[in-house]
Amino acid sequence: MTDTVDSLRIDDLPIRDELRGKSPYGAPQLDVPVQLNTNENPYPLPEPLVARIAERVAEAARSLNRYPDRDATELRTELARYLTRTGKHPVAVENVWAANGSNEVLQQLLQTFGGPGRTAIGFEPSYSMHGLIARGTGTGWISGPRNADFTIDVEAAERAIAEHRPDVVFITSPNNPTGTAVEAETVLALYEAAQAAKPSLVVVDEAYVEFSHRDSLLPLIEGRPHLVVSRTMSKAFGAAGLRLGYLAAHPAVVDAVQLVRLPYHLSAVTQATALAALEHTDTLLGYVEQLKAERDRLVTELRAIGYEVTESDANFVQFGHFDGAEGSHAAWQKILDRGVLVRDNGVPGWLRVTAGTPEENDAFLDAVRALKKEQSS
Amino acid sequence: MTDTVDSLRIDDLPIRDELRGKSPYGAPQLDVPVQLNTNENPYPLPEPLVARIAERVAEAARSLNRYPDRDATELRTELARYLTRTGKHPVAVENVWAANGSNEVLQQLLQTFGGPGRTAIGFEPSYSMHGLIARGTGTGWISGPRNADFTIDVEAAERAIAEHRPDVVFITSPNNPTGTAVEAETVLALYEAAQAAKPSLVVVDEAYVEFSHRDSLLPLIEGRPHLVVSRTMSKAFGAAGLRLGYLAAHPAVVDAVQLVRLPYHLSAVTQATALAALEHTDTLLGYVEQLKAERDRLVTELRAIGYEVTESDANFVQFGHFDGAEGSHAAWQKILDRGVLVRDNGVPGWLRVTAGTPEENDAFLDAVRALKKEQSS
Repeated sequence: MTDTVDSLRIDDLPIRDELRGKSPYGAPQLDVPVQLNTNENPYPLPEPLVARIAERVAEAARSLNRYPDRDATELRTELARYLTRTGKHPVAVENVWAANGSNEVLQQLLQTFGGPGRTAIGFEPSYSMHGLIARGTGTGWISGPRNADFTIDVEAAERAIAEHRPDVVFITSPNNPTGTAVEAETVLALYEAAQAAKPSLVVVDEAYVEFSHRDSLLPLIEGRPHLVVSRTMSKAFGAAGLRLGYLAAHPAVVDAVQLVRLPYHLSAVTQATALAALEHTDTLLGYVEQLKAERDRLVTELRAIGYEVTESDANFVQFGHFDGAEGSHAAWQKILDRGVLVRDNGVPGWLRVTAGTPEENDAFLDAVRALKKEQSS
Repeated sequence: MTDTVDSLRIDDLPIRDELRGKSPYGAPQLDVPVQLNTNENPYPLPEPLVARIAERVAEAARSLNRYPDRDATELRTELARYLTRTGKHPVAVENVWAANGSNEVLQQLLQTFGGPGRTAIGFEPSYSMHGLIARGTGTGWISGPRNADFTIDVEAAERAIAEHRPDVVFITSPNNPTGTAVEAETVLALYEAAQAAKPSLVVVDEAYVEFSHRDSLLPLIEGRPHLVVSRTMSKAFGAAGLRLGYLAAHPAVVDAVQLVRLPYHLSAVTQATALAALEHTDTLLGYVEQLKAERDRLVTELRAIGYEVTESDANFVQFGHFDGAEGSHAAWQKILDRGVLVRDNGVPGWLRVTAGTPEENDAFLDAVRALKKEQSS
């Protein structure tokens, strides 16, 4: 009996049928000198901010025996101030909600507006967690179309929305893994289509928007109570380790997600750390400017070497075009063999590279230059 | 239009039907001198631990631009060490999983083993979040019975399990809000019943076990791959603000919840803070001993005053018996009028008081003594 028990595996357990045979999500974590695979910000937080985090966390730790502020009011107030300042639209604490990463924000939205018997649509390739969180919340997933250049095919998207009448529509801008920003007109067209069909919630995932050449789509929430903009401190604030995501929307949406949020979901140390980081916004946005310049350099150099590059408004660049899924996987391996880890997102013929430090980007460019030479010879 | 939009409320949004008319979970937070309503540990973390937290968090903050350890390996190793040391059963890192509060642990278990088309049972009154997390994950909820003395009616529970064939069975030990610990024999009987009926997952919620007169039920996981013990650092470790819950189970269960956990769900600052607290286990367990003595004093004094008290193995005490729901609510208000906030959990005729510092408990005892005098006169 003990032997049998010891050798049990996941599929021997009474798990949900749709989880059988599945593997956990996650990028391969390999020990490689140059890691440009997970869109992390390459710049560590500056020491004065590290010191301020230690200070604010120590303060929070002195009352850690008490539950944290359930409504994270101070943090949401500061996030609203940041959005107001950078988003060209006034946002108040009542418009903002925060959770453990934008993944948890999206999960709460799907628990409230999606879930069993309901569906969500995304236009793929896009951020694969949208579909995975849909699965995790029992929401049916519909894979919507894109143009060959990875922009959203508005007419086809409108038709898909009219046909499937999804309860939630995901629009990622800038899109991951392709890098492309979405026009405000496209969002408005899909919002109208979604309202006509159901009405449904439209979630604009702006995880990478601080790196964009364009303004945030935040002002679109005005007068549109079913439009939500989600954000994260993982990328622009250089704080992937913090797990702090947030959304801006009509106050009723913020009230609604509180029906499903786990009480006290956001720890006192997370709130304290995020508040410290927000005090250093200017410094951190300075790093964003450096990364934008590096991203633009990657685009220029990749094209100069002879690669195709998808327009990028993010801190990463999609490049190719390799010969299908096999070609991109082989290229991924050859770049890895040169000590640089990029991401194969499963978009046939394309790979994604995160903008790193100038030195990391040089190492990457050397690797793909050598690869090109090898393939041409 | 703007006026209409501005005045929108939750129920005007396209939320799920079962959320309509609901309110967010949460104890009323009132500004009162003595707060004995949420089972918090009254002892702030000692200053050397606060300093150590600041130190470890500063270290973590230096690589906060990177994603945290997705598998929280160091933390799970230390939690396993703690369980092995205190639980009279050897536990390894493969047996342990951690998340943002035991609520998130339970949510992940329900996403994996419950969910749409499946059901969970609890024996009520018990921790009300079990039913709420079931609702949030689309799991049907079955309210099982208890005896009048709040122990589990084993025969009735076995019948309920045989009849409803639930996918998940919750057993809270010590039970919240009643305080009663559950016998190992009861857990074994319900585990057998649950295996015969389905098989289903049995979750033993031991959030308060460190305060018990009895040993943990942890050794029961041996040879029982469908038995999970959940724990928290909120109570015994005096870290409600940290949001660190964990479970011990067969390694296959730990693998299975990774199919639904949000990637990188546990922040680097949470992991660092929890690791610092685990370094100070002995000091924190010393506070637990003080609180157990205070809890026992509350039981003795309440009985001496003339109240009925449910046997308590937790850091709180259920007392009464008031005249139904109205009587307990009136008593709650009168105790509050004397500056002491206790909890009305909606168990008709009963209230729950958290064991605080000796001074807080004295203030509470004065208040209920005065109440008894008033009601007797």
